[in-house]
Amino acid sequence: MKQVIECIPNFSEGRRQPVIDAISGSIAAVPGIRVLDVQSDADHNRTVVTFVGERQSVAEAAFQGVATAAKLIDLDHHQGEHPRIGATDVVPLVPVSGVTMDECVELARRLGQRVGMELDIPVYLYERAATRPERSNLADVRRGEYEGLKQEILTNPDRAPDFGPARLGPSGATVIGARQFLIAYNVFLATDDVNIARQIALAVRHSSGGLRHVKALGLTVEGKAQVSMNLTDFHLTPVHRVVELIRREAARYGVAVERSELIGLIPEQALIDAAQWYLQLDGFSRDQVLEIKLREG
Amino acid sequence: MKQVIECIPNFSEGRRQPVIDAISGSIAAVPGIRVLDVQSDADHNRTVVTFVGERQSVAEAAFQGVATAAKLIDLDHHQGEHPRIGATDVVPLVPVSGVTMDECVELARRLGQRVGMELDIPVYLYERAATRPERSNLADVRRGEYEGLKQEILTNPDRAPDFGPARLGPSGATVIGARQFLIAYNVFLATDDVNIARQIALAVRHSSGGLRHVKALGLTVEGKAQVSMNLTDFHLTPVHRVVELIRREAARYGVAVERSELIGLIPEQALIDAAQWYLQLDGFSRDQVLEIKLREG
Repeated sequence: MKQVIECIPNFSEGRRQPVIDAISGSIAAVPGIRVLDVQSDADHNRTVVTFVGERQSVAEAAFQGVATAAKLIDLDHHQGEHPRIGATDVVPLVPVSGVTMDECVELARRLGQRVGMELDIPVYLYERAATRPERSNLADVRRGEYEGLKQEILTNPDRAPDFGPARLGPSGATVIGARQFLIAYNVFLATDDVNIARQIALAVRHSSGGLRHVKALGLTVEGKAQVSMNLTDFHLTPVHRVVELIRREAARYGVAVERSELIGLIPEQALIDAAQWYLQLDGFSRDQVLEIKLREG
Repeated sequence: MKQVIECIPNFSEGRRQPVIDAISGSIAAVPGIRVLDVQSDADHNRTVVTFVGERQSVAEAAFQGVATAAKLIDLDHHQGEHPRIGATDVVPLVPVSGVTMDECVELARRLGQRVGMELDIPVYLYERAATRPERSNLADVRRGEYEGLKQEILTNPDRAPDFGPARLGPSGATVIGARQFLIAYNVFLATDDVNIARQIALAVRHSSGGLRHVKALGLTVEGKAQVSMNLTDFHLTPVHRVVELIRREAARYGVAVERSELIGLIPEQALIDAAQWYLQLDGFSRDQVLEIKLREG
């Protein structure tokens, strides 16, 4: 199976197009890398680059992106709505195919070490690559943002980086780690009552007692109540279980699921898992899919 | 998108391994061809070869298979349980990706013409490539088998071949055509009462009033009642509609669907269609599947 790792670095620049181009260009220039998307937001003053490749290429491209951002972005003169601690704020590595989570964790650690040593940037490992439980969650690592961390890193041993110096330069610190593919999945209800969407979001999301790998909010979108979600591990908390639980909760209010939508990409496996579950294909194996057999067989 | 045509020729030899090897070898030797499967059955005295490739390669490989079979198989000395009219009995071409049904029909006609002219074998076009409605169905074209057709082709204008001579040599006649991918899909019921499976088969299959592209039988398999099916056009009669209709019919007898199984391969699109239908992903597009975007984007 062809090895594919996805990397989705977030850079603290969403306004100066030449800077955005220089960063994404330094990533795209690495052989074996395919840039799938570059999304900049001026209000957040932030750019998200999505690219894929094999292990060595991805590590090199991520390093080049971090190096370019460190040269061109000065956090002392950066303002934006989105919380951030570094010119390169966060670098998640995601196993897509032919590679395990453990290998992505290992890759994140080696990338972090190189960023710390060669670029003199403090690096925090997060999610599956975290070295302390309290660093799993990105929001916790980013607490106080660049301005707060600048002071705290000097004195608080809890904020000591995993790699690099315990002091912040103008390019700040970078959070690097490995996580599962994130599926952005929204379910529209056949009602305009947003309170029902909010009640359902509370029921299905992990933080308030629901499913382990679901983050959810109740919103009004296009005049309909919507349960808006991030599914952070579709292997353990699959899409079909989420929508069927929402369907059941909605029925309790006399409401049906009208439709659902994916924002961005979904791994093939998540759709195959849903088809297998609904069709009750117990003995099914991936290499019964013609295209997978042609690709991998 | 990469062009993939599947070809599944059936040869009237399932016992003499050197003959089977010579036929499949002549197919595999064509550049650009990938042989996925060779299945021989001694009782049927028949071998089914499954291979894929682009248009020109597939036409060349099919021709080479027919030519080799014509040299090595003598229908005057062939016996087997399976009905047949030729050394190469039938050659279906199936569009898998990057190619339309019309292009496969055109390819079937050109292949038929070449087999008729260069090998002096009578060729009947069937299924989507049929030139007469009464030749759509393979069983109708094969009526009387080799022995019956040998006499009838000489005198009955209804049996005149589309290409080649109106007389049978010892390699018989060959049926060539284009059809949709055939999905072999079986649904197990939570009962051992085969009569319920038979009633459901009658309800869902086309021939007795059911869904257009479903062939079905009720059987007992592993002690359970099974609805055994061929789905002959999953674009028009999708797998999810079939299993949900079976589920409804079974409920009328107080019986549930226990599990289902696929025999052999299924195109990725059939599983994506099922996931999209059950998850109610109305605005979904194929290039939201990460692997498809990587492959085709």
